[in-house]
Amino acid sequence: MLTTFSYKNSALIPQNTLEEIASSLKEYTRRLQSVVDSKTYDAPESSINLPSDASLLDSVLTMKEKKVSPQLRYILDVGIGGSNLGTKSVYDALFGFYDILQPDRFPKILFLDTVSEDFFIKLSSLLESISNKEEILINAISKSGGTTETIANLEVLLEFLKKTFPDISDRLVITTDENSKLWQRAKELQIDVLPIPKQVGGRYSVLSAVGLFPLAAAGITIERLLKGAEEMREFCLSQDGLANPALLSAAITHFHSKNGKNITDSFFFAPQLESIGKWYRQLTGESLGKEHDLQGNVVHTGITPTVSIGSTDLHSVGQLYLGGPRDKITTFIYTTNEPALLSLPSSLQFPLVEGIENKKLREIMAAILEGVKIAYQKQGLPFMEVAFDSINEQSLGEFLQFKMLEMMYLGQLFNVNAFDQPHVELYKVETKRILNSK
Amino acid sequence: MLTTFSYKNSALIPQNTLEEIASSLKEYTRRLQSVVDSKTYDAPESSINLPSDASLLDSVLTMKEKKVSPQLRYILDVGIGGSNLGTKSVYDALFGFYDILQPDRFPKILFLDTVSEDFFIKLSSLLESISNKEEILINAISKSGGTTETIANLEVLLEFLKKTFPDISDRLVITTDENSKLWQRAKELQIDVLPIPKQVGGRYSVLSAVGLFPLAAAGITIERLLKGAEEMREFCLSQDGLANPALLSAAITHFHSKNGKNITDSFFFAPQLESIGKWYRQLTGESLGKEHDLQGNVVHTGITPTVSIGSTDLHSVGQLYLGGPRDKITTFIYTTNEPALLSLPSSLQFPLVEGIENKKLREIMAAILEGVKIAYQKQGLPFMEVAFDSINEQSLGEFLQFKMLEMMYLGQLFNVNAFDQPHVELYKVETKRILNSK
Repeated sequence: MLTTFSYKNSALIPQNTLEEIASSLKEYTRRLQSVVDSKTYDAPESSINLPSDASLLDSVLTMKEKKVSPQLRYILDVGIGGSNLGTKSVYDALFGFYDILQPDRFPKILFLDTVSEDFFIKLSSLLESISNKEEILINAISKSGGTTETIANLEVLLEFLKKTFPDISDRLVITTDENSKLWQRAKELQIDVLPIPKQVGGRYSVLSAVGLFPLAAAGITIERLLKGAEEMREFCLSQDGLANPALLSAAITHFHSKNGKNITDSFFFAPQLESIGKWYRQLTGESLGKEHDLQGNVVHTGITPTVSIGSTDLHSVGQLYLGGPRDKITTFIYTTNEPALLSLPSSLQFPLVEGIENKKLREIMAAILEGVKIAYQKQGLPFMEVAFDSINEQSLGEFLQFKMLEMMYLGQLFNVNAFDQPHVELYKVETKRILNSK
Repeated sequence: MLTTFSYKNSALIPQNTLEEIASSLKEYTRRLQSVVDSKTYDAPESSINLPSDASLLDSVLTMKEKKVSPQLRYILDVGIGGSNLGTKSVYDALFGFYDILQPDRFPKILFLDTVSEDFFIKLSSLLESISNKEEILINAISKSGGTTETIANLEVLLEFLKKTFPDISDRLVITTDENSKLWQRAKELQIDVLPIPKQVGGRYSVLSAVGLFPLAAAGITIERLLKGAEEMREFCLSQDGLANPALLSAAITHFHSKNGKNITDSFFFAPQLESIGKWYRQLTGESLGKEHDLQGNVVHTGITPTVSIGSTDLHSVGQLYLGGPRDKITTFIYTTNEPALLSLPSSLQFPLVEGIENKKLREIMAAILEGVKIAYQKQGLPFMEVAFDSINEQSLGEFLQFKMLEMMYLGQLFNVNAFDQPHVELYKVETKRILNSK
């Protein structure tokens, strides 16, 4: 395990309360284990079977073999929400955060999520420089097959590329639910498809073909991502609740949410993890933000996820967090064991900050994080910690699986369906009416 | 005016309450006007004098003349919090959001805010490709002159660049408070400096040399940014409170915050504005998030700012916003008058979404936004709207000034000092102790 969870002395939850919550989740832990044992995709929780699905891995690697050559420069990932946030979280952590510094590193993934004419116009100029269609690969992802933004972006993109490459559909892979209308249409057009198991919802789909295919195409070792997830799954199914990181994190979050804290802040001391924070925003927002509980009572429950970046946001919302309302439960996420190669010189040109001469850059960041944790404790602000050994495919897989299982436990504790998102329809209905009336 | 504010029928505030709040702010509006009339930098509010400061503009343009040649490729903006969030918000809105699509457009600004060894290692590889020092310009910004991250980043950067360019300090401009220790040291080393007026705090400093110099160096017409701010200032000092957008927005936000809504969401239907949302996070977080009120009572007050992107986040936190806790006041920010050049084809390859054939991309986005607004109204969720005519220097200047004046009114309504940030010291003290003990 490259990722460890800790909470003692900082989570501000009575031990007996924690034990009671852990004990209330025993039955659900058994249910999760039975889902793993079934090796099927029948239950709402069955995304947890993705990491050990050998035929999924095989189908993704086969498609990669077919579509990716050393000439590949740009992967156009067309998808929104659960169809791209997981992919973006892994890609950005390993490559994307640095793409502007590495103009000659390829392949790069470009994400088309919302519809933006401004973005598209600049993208089309870039694509005009492509002379060989092997340099591009389009992956359009829509679980339902009918996502407005994704279909709109895909249609405009294909229309544009067809002018130069009449047979551009060779370079398109569609990822969707087996037998969705999009699946059927792709088959009619002889376009390659990858399936998403029906029961695996968008926000739990990063380890399905949704995330695995574009990540593999970008050169990321998806086997290690899956290995990390599979190992973490075991820990997060532990019957000993007090040794189960997902259950503990859920219990502590829920406890504070019921005691007036309606914001859960993920505070990443590694700026390349901001996108994984955005993935977790969806996971939390859609899973717990519910009008109705499981008995149909109107409850308007949930907790609002925020993403902070250390040390950047200490100079932004640090004042609010330390001095403002006591309405947050925080998780600090950081690395402990990355190589520390760079140091400050022993003699500074600007000797204006004491104690940094000769220090390693990572030592300075560690001192800032340590200072923040002490300040939080002194202010009585509850927090948990997730320590990555280092940021790589395996630890990212571990973190993703940890958080998805945490969310399933949270669904139980909030007494809501952690797998649906009925209110998203409220605006879609209106949008559809407007589009059809013009 | 390229930017308009609206709230009627959606802000869910009784008209007489609004009138009372407006009337309570009349005296403060007069005080703000007297600050403008003074044309000095004596009051905490005096950042509002920056847009009409001709000598500031002159000094920035003179420095640009001296430092920027057509060879310039990378501006290294070394600063954190108030020293870079404003710059980044304007740069990203106009260029940065598209930088990955435009590898050959220069100059680009690269931001060094937090200390990241991983980022620095990739940056140093990029800088190794630079053969002429005119291709780079470093702007290090620290109001106090003693910001740990900024000094650390600057020292490591200079140490690295000196190996290739022994006289690299020619290519450095330092922006800091006049007569800070950093200012004095820069003078000793004969490094060029630009001043920040003492009373202009970091989060209100975007229209000082802090933002103006790097933006001008990047080719942005700062005169139009200032013109927008100056025009907006007049509206936001209107004695008629019900015609004063900053006062209205403050009144509505405060009213809801006192009625159980502890989150203020800025929902941008233009993804290139995400960084301006992050700038506003600091502005709100540091200005209002306070342990003490103006009388010294312990209040732990404030409101937590969040940033959402339309339509992306409808597929992420839309479910939470529409179905979850009623704890948010929202501002939708969008454009109304950008050119609409791109349309969907009349015959779709994937005819799976009704009503989008032949539609312009901007029409689809407008229908989604309209659908969201109707859904918010039906759910009884309060919101305001800011409409940009289009995104350009002038409208960005208008928006920045609008929000800075809104924050000053909010400081009055929350009864806190909107210009200090005492709790940031809490972790800095601990960090300093740790660094000095090793």
